Amino acid sequence: MPRAVREQQMLDAAVETFAQRGYGAASMDEIAVVAGVSKPLVYLYLNSKEELFSACIRREAEALVAAVRGAVEPGARSAAQQLWCGLRGFFAHTAANPDGWAVLNNQARTQGEPFAREIAVMREEIIELVTRLIAAASREAGYDPELAGREVAGLAHALVGAAESLAGWANAPGGDSPTSKEAAATLMNFAWAGLENLMNGRHWSPAL
Amino acid sequence: MPRAVREQQMLDAAVETFAQRGYGAASMDEIAVVAGVSKPLVYLYLNSKEELFSACIRREAEALVAAVRGAVEPGARSAAQQLWCGLRGFFAHTAANPDGWAVLNNQARTQGEPFAREIAVMREEIIELVTRLIAAASREAGYDPELAGREVAGLAHALVGAAESLAGWANAPGGDSPTSKEAAATLMNFAWAGLENLMNGRHWSPAL
Repeated sequence: MPRAVREQQMLDAAVETFAQRGYGAASMDEIAVVAGVSKPLVYLYLNSKEELFSACIRREAEALVAAVRGAVEPGARSAAQQLWCGLRGFFAHTAANPDGWAVLNNQARTQGEPFAREIAVMREEIIELVTRLIAAASREAGYDPELAGREVAGLAHALVGAAESLAGWANAPGGDSPTSKEAAATLMNFAWAGLENLMNGRHWSPAL
Repeated sequence: MPRAVREQQMLDAAVETFAQRGYGAASMDEIAVVAGVSKPLVYLYLNSKEELFSACIRREAEALVAAVRGAVEPGARSAAQQLWCGLRGFFAHTAANPDGWAVLNNQARTQGEPFAREIAVMREEIIELVTRLIAAASREAGYDPELAGREVAGLAHALVGAAESLAGWANAPGGDSPTSKEAAATLMNFAWAGLENLMNGRHWSPAL
């Protein structure tokens, strides 16, 4: 079996084991058993538990970013529709890959450096994409994005944080969790209405 | 000096040190120096670095929840105004206590159990409060919350995730970060518009 195929099997086994046991409790023995290979082969290919974990984070982060970018599909659609497709892509991917999402959202963030840094880089990339789409949607609607650069960036940070929180809820075991489509709809209602207000210069002001 | 006062000094020093060095790199020596006490006294009062860190998380989580609850002030205000006050309280508190927020949002979450569990409990408490306020606001507006239990819970998860993300951005060093008032306004525009749509049964639907 070619090395590349074996490595993917090891990464599949590692993502599953890290997601389910947690990084600290996951053992290289168990990962080798799940992958159906010998432990020395895992060390030969991936050096250490730290490097194996980093490789898992990189693979899962790239897959998530690719799923979101792929779902966006520029083409003839409006920026608002691209945003909707990107959100659907995000929730569909995290629902279809719960172990990968757990590695990124729970495990990698909770193990300090250098892993947290890799998550921060992925997050920045997604925030940039969302900022660009929100700015394009507000341009389409005739709203001057120069005036609202910080509002657009604020909406993008809010939207990405909201998406992470909803994906965590949607993937939580048991309970009354939404489907990935419901989560996307909740967020798009949320985001779209906020965006419309922003584009129309409407602001909620407290009557205090 | 009474023990309670000394302990608060140690916790002040520990929160500052954990926020700035990170949990792993922070040393009990440095914390004792910053607190102006001897290292044996820190161990006598707080036992270990783990217990000191737990005590910091508990104190900062309680202070944050108390700040949000205190800001909400039921009284005669509408639920929408209570939500606005709660958001303002959240952003004002995290801006005034950046080290405490860094301990909760960056350090405690990134050190695995038992610390992550304490953050999850605080988060659940805030999500419950926000869910209750959103449900009350939609009742005030005549929207039947029975029909929309999951939508209300979804909005609450989205809102809390968005608030965390915006507070992280607002407290990031350098860059074009918003003030706490701007962050609250961005989020309230976002939340309020989403809530209005929910209350009016309006949904964004993609024209695909």
